[in-house]
Amino acid sequence: MKISFKNDYSEGCHPNILEALIINNTSQQEGYGLDEFSLKATELILKKCSSPDSAVHLVSGGTQANLIVIAALLKPHESVIAANTGHIFNNEAGAIEATGHKISTAESTDGKLRPEQIKKILDDHSRPPHQLKPRLVYISNATELGTIYTKSELEALYQCCQEHDLYLFMDGARLAQAMMASNNDLSWADVAKYTDVFYLGGTKNGALLGEAIVINNTRLQEDFAFHVKQKGAMLSKGRLLGLQFQALLENDLFLDLAKHANQEAMKIKEAFKRLGCSFLIETFTNQIFPILSQEQIKALSEGFEFYTWHKIDEENAAVRIITSWASKESIVDVFVDAIHALKK
Amino acid sequence: MKISFKNDYSEGCHPNILEALIINNTSQQEGYGLDEFSLKATELILKKCSSPDSAVHLVSGGTQANLIVIAALLKPHESVIAANTGHIFNNEAGAIEATGHKISTAESTDGKLRPEQIKKILDDHSRPPHQLKPRLVYISNATELGTIYTKSELEALYQCCQEHDLYLFMDGARLAQAMMASNNDLSWADVAKYTDVFYLGGTKNGALLGEAIVINNTRLQEDFAFHVKQKGAMLSKGRLLGLQFQALLENDLFLDLAKHANQEAMKIKEAFKRLGCSFLIETFTNQIFPILSQEQIKALSEGFEFYTWHKIDEENAAVRIITSWASKESIVDVFVDAIHALKK
Amino acid sequence: MKISFKNDYSEGCHPNILEALIINNTSQQEGYGLDEFSLKATELILKKCSSPDSAVHLVSGGTQANLIVIAALLKPHESVIAANTGHIFNNEAGAIEATGHKISTAESTDGKLRPEQIKKILDDHSRPPHQLKPRLVYISNATELGTIYTKSELEALYQCCQEHDLYLFMDGARLAQAMMASNNDLSWADVAKYTDVFYLGGTKNGALLGEAIVINNTRLQEDFAFHVKQKGAMLSKGRLLGLQFQALLENDLFLDLAKHANQEAMKIKEAFKRLGCSFLIETFTNQIFPILSQEQIKALSEGFEFYTWHKIDEENAAVRIITSWASKESIVDVFVDAIHALKK
Amino acid sequence: MKISFKNDYSEGCHPNILEALIINNTSQQEGYGLDEFSLKATELILKKCSSPDSAVHLVSGGTQANLIVIAALLKPHESVIAANTGHIFNNEAGAIEATGHKISTAESTDGKLRPEQIKKILDDHSRPPHQLKPRLVYISNATELGTIYTKSELEALYQCCQEHDLYLFMDGARLAQAMMASNNDLSWADVAKYTDVFYLGGTKNGALLGEAIVINNTRLQEDFAFHVKQKGAMLSKGRLLGLQFQALLENDLFLDLAKHANQEAMKIKEAFKRLGCSFLIETFTNQIFPILSQEQIKALSEGFEFYTWHKIDEENAAVRIITSWASKESIVDVFVDAIHALKK
Repeated sequence: MKISFKNDYSEGCHPNILEALIINNTSQQEGYGLDEFSLKATELILKKCSSPDSAVHLVSGGTQANLIVIAALLKPHESVIAANTGHIFNNEAGAIEATGHKISTAESTDGKLRPEQIKKILDDHSRPPHQLKPRLVYISNATELGTIYTKSELEALYQCCQEHDLYLFMDGARLAQAMMASNNDLSWADVAKYTDVFYLGGTKNGALLGEAIVINNTRLQEDFAFHVKQKGAMLSKGRLLGLQFQALLENDLFLDLAKHANQEAMKIKEAFKRLGCSFLIETFTNQIFPILSQEQIKALSEGFEFYTWHKIDEENAAVRIITSWASKESIVDVFVDAIHALKK
Repeated sequence: MKISFKNDYSEGCHPNILEALIINNTSQQEGYGLDEFSLKATELILKKCSSPDSAVHLVSGGTQANLIVIAALLKPHESVIAANTGHIFNNEAGAIEATGHKISTAESTDGKLRPEQIKKILDDHSRPPHQLKPRLVYISNATELGTIYTKSELEALYQCCQEHDLYLFMDGARLAQAMMASNNDLSWADVAKYTDVFYLGGTKNGALLGEAIVINNTRLQEDFAFHVKQKGAMLSKGRLLGLQFQALLENDLFLDLAKHANQEAMKIKEAFKRLGCSFLIETFTNQIFPILSQEQIKALSEGFEFYTWHKIDEENAAVRIITSWASKESIVDVFVDAIHALKK
Repeated sequence: MKISFKNDYSEGCHPNILEALIINNTSQQEGYGLDEFSLKATELILKKCSSPDSAVHLVSGGTQANLIVIAALLKPHESVIAANTGHIFNNEAGAIEATGHKISTAESTDGKLRPEQIKKILDDHSRPPHQLKPRLVYISNATELGTIYTKSELEALYQCCQEHDLYLFMDGARLAQAMMASNNDLSWADVAKYTDVFYLGGTKNGALLGEAIVINNTRLQEDFAFHVKQKGAMLSKGRLLGLQFQALLENDLFLDLAKHANQEAMKIKEAFKRLGCSFLIETFTNQIFPILSQEQIKALSEGFEFYTWHKIDEENAAVRIITSWASKESIVDVFVDAIHALKK
Repeated sequence: MKISFKNDYSEGCHPNILEALIINNTSQQEGYGLDEFSLKATELILKKCSSPDSAVHLVSGGTQANLIVIAALLKPHESVIAANTGHIFNNEAGAIEATGHKISTAESTDGKLRPEQIKKILDDHSRPPHQLKPRLVYISNATELGTIYTKSELEALYQCCQEHDLYLFMDGARLAQAMMASNNDLSWADVAKYTDVFYLGGTKNGALLGEAIVINNTRLQEDFAFHVKQKGAMLSKGRLLGLQFQALLENDLFLDLAKHANQEAMKIKEAFKRLGCSFLIETFTNQIFPILSQEQIKALSEGFEFYTWHKIDEENAAVRIITSWASKESIVDVFVDAIHALKK
């Protein structure tokens, strides 16, 4: 069996979560997210973000979080602005359009969206009502390419959104990894302050499943639970989500896990650098995109699984290597050795 | 803390599931339902139903299962027929209508739908294209009132659907409980044979979450995974669903759990009978609906939680008592004693 | 060829409209409702309703008006309350549900909805978020059964809506006929005052096509044109709608037409009364519902077309007779003679 | 008042249509498209296309036609492929997305879509079910840039669609203009043969409103009327559409009108050519896109209205000049003179 660096959801969950499931298994709890664990998890998340007036809703997955937030916030004639690398545009089977909303995209080489791109899209929507009204900006942090937003970048985006009556929504499937990147200067309070809504991913950071939607704009909080229910995302045993986020937030476990994932990725990045590889893009989170020759890819594939991400030319392609909270150092060392053994 | 008989999802999961989670936690698995546990669970479900050509999709919850199946099967101008007691009509926040489909209902006093009611609704749709084209019949087994369909009833429904070009879809959130009822004469093969699609509930029968959608009509199987993904129901760690259904199906654990739930409900039913109560409806599954006086309700509420379901008159109301796989005999005995202690 | 009393859209349009089309045919006009005729029509409608702050949007048909208004006003989790006789519930091919919204109905024998029925439906939605949030009340005036709302009835409905944060929307496909009924006590200002939105029907009152949506609640006016466009209802040659409403509103032509339709219906009603008929319901607008024997229906059908509306018993059925602005007195006289010639 | 060359729907309708409206005004007709004029129009259209098994549905406008066809043909997980110049992508307020379907676009400089672009988009959808299933190709003929498809181009597109299980849908808002272009080699039979569905535009070619949807693929014909009704596009007085198409088709009036529009555009094109202008793109239909200096645009704007379409550089921009069936030769001569009078 090969070792997989294909994604960050290949394993189960952190042992603390298993333990919490075991300890609390027979406790009778209210259904639908009103259990004591969900309430505690909410409290911990709000405290972490220094944002006591935000509202938290726990759901199962990222596509679900994205479609619920967007469907809840927008009216039928309002549309979304995103980078063309955005997960909602490429990897969610049209989940957003299925709720009736168009996504207008700006081309991005690093996964990030910038204020001037937003303004350009707004300019291109100059003929109402023949063209839609862009109303929500979707960004991912970390992005789908492993890059992250700096504080000044996020602030500028939020400023731009405020000026143009746009909501700013951050997909945080890998938010903890972004926040623990060595080049990050955002605080958790910044995340809450400079977005209308964001979600904090659990699935890719130690949970079996779970994303915590955090609604910072208080005007958007009313009636949100209806949308969670209507889209089939309100678990009878909401405790399953509550317990996991409680375990992850306690003592900042989720940050330790993200830090670990990043560190292992950086080790592998170093190995590729020593080999003399260039990269599709420089990243400091748990995803790296080294450019390898077909021969190198073939050699590495004998013992390891990963995605070939992007063809560079006939000879070379960028591959994607992902680490996670579950990547053991000893396994990463084996991988590093295999990289070193590659022919240049 | 009061003991709750409010619903069958107050506790966590069966210990076998916890054990399976622990044992397999570090195994690297494919995402999105392609893990080995999901494949094994599928195999077990199909074997149980003697229906090797059926397709299985594991999702998180009942509302999710209902909306995905209905949205996948129907075209925009096709509608649903259901009993007015149906979960999709009353308890899912308009999830079906949100996918664009109307539900036409027939009044039901026992939770069941009958061929003559279907025909009546078809007759009332005699003015196409001004009226929709009913295309799918939704039933629940056990019903929302705890009753079940007999083999001849289900056969007749399916026959009626076949004659009128209607799909028959069974919501099986409590299917195991129905199948283990003392008055049941359906086999698992019958369920697969006499429905186009059904789902087997895990959440209310020992799982943390999970419903297994089983598509028996092979013409409806193509492309189904797109709909699961598009509605946000495809878990990255599909293993969580696979592991649970594997654990539940092995050695028919799920049947033992359902049988236990029913037996405990029947004990409580007997207690109410001995008290001289009448019932809103006679049931043999894990839900019972005794009619109590306000005084009796008040007395019983001191130590136990349950829903007052339906007001009968100024003095009396039907309450709903639900047991589950997790209802301990000793606790049920305490409840039985409390019932016996009620004033007639 | 038989004479038709089947509906009020069997003929073309009033000659004044033809004339306006001819006279203005070569005039170059802005598209999409910005033509001078639409602007003039808007002015005339607002003046008629003494409601200068209302906004007017002209669209082609009733189903279109209904679905645009409801889709524009409601969020995904909000639903509609209507009488079960409502056109949106029975005759629009699920147009409202296709926009994602459920319609909850109250049974009505006279086509009207009453505050206590609204309150009952609100009471039945006591479990948010598992049940939807009713947000809009749909009524028709005249109703689908030809009855009308009195001023006190409309005021009470509006009051009820205000108290429960509900929008009141009046389908006015036959509003002019209602307003010209001998038992009407509503003024046009009342209509604007006691509804959030209504529409004034042109198609059934002399136009080739056209319904004028009037938005009285100023908070609902913003961005409405987007919805008109998005649903495919914004005509390039909006002039066609503008010209017609201008012609109909000038000198209250539309009221004369409605009055004429009502009068002819009343003549026929008298004839049936003299024959000794009873009626499904007493009406004073252009629809009447006499109860006839099968023999009488057969006899009358030899020369005239009309719908058999509702079976009363084996022997008798209510038929629907509709007159319109185009019903010639001489033709109606022929019909009246035929009624008198029926066997009692 | 300036003379407008802004669009081809500035005037009313061809006198023959007015005459038909007048002559048939008092005739009693069935509603909802079952009138004798609609039946006759259908017959004429099918005969024109030598396609007796096609089905025809008359609707009011282009956005309406597009959204109905696409919503009727596609399932929720199926998407649309179009040129990025496509009307549905830029000018219909998200009407297609509002029905739940994503549009994937290929960049086009001439308004046309090519097989290799379709294949590229298909290749980019290689990860089902995470990515949608493209199922329908949308093209316009004439395109939004006034260009047209040759027979070999259309045949190649249809062939490509057949090979990849895609429907080919042609937006024919200006189809008659395309067919009468001097460089056209398509026959009407070709149009029916090489598309699954197309529509023939009336609004921009002499009608007050009206587009004729022609469904050539017989498997797509069933139940189509439901969709027309559900989207609010089924006129009570369908006669209005029937009468117009009957008048337009009789003696090929619609072709004469399109030919006239094209000829007048070509006169203007010649004038710009003589002035030494280049063009954004060469066209032979009723739209031309000469590139003018800001000074020239300003001078011409004094007497005429037209859109500035596309900025070329600081000094120059392409403008759009549209002629129509209603463009009088004498007026066009005035315009030509004005062009000649421009400074080079």
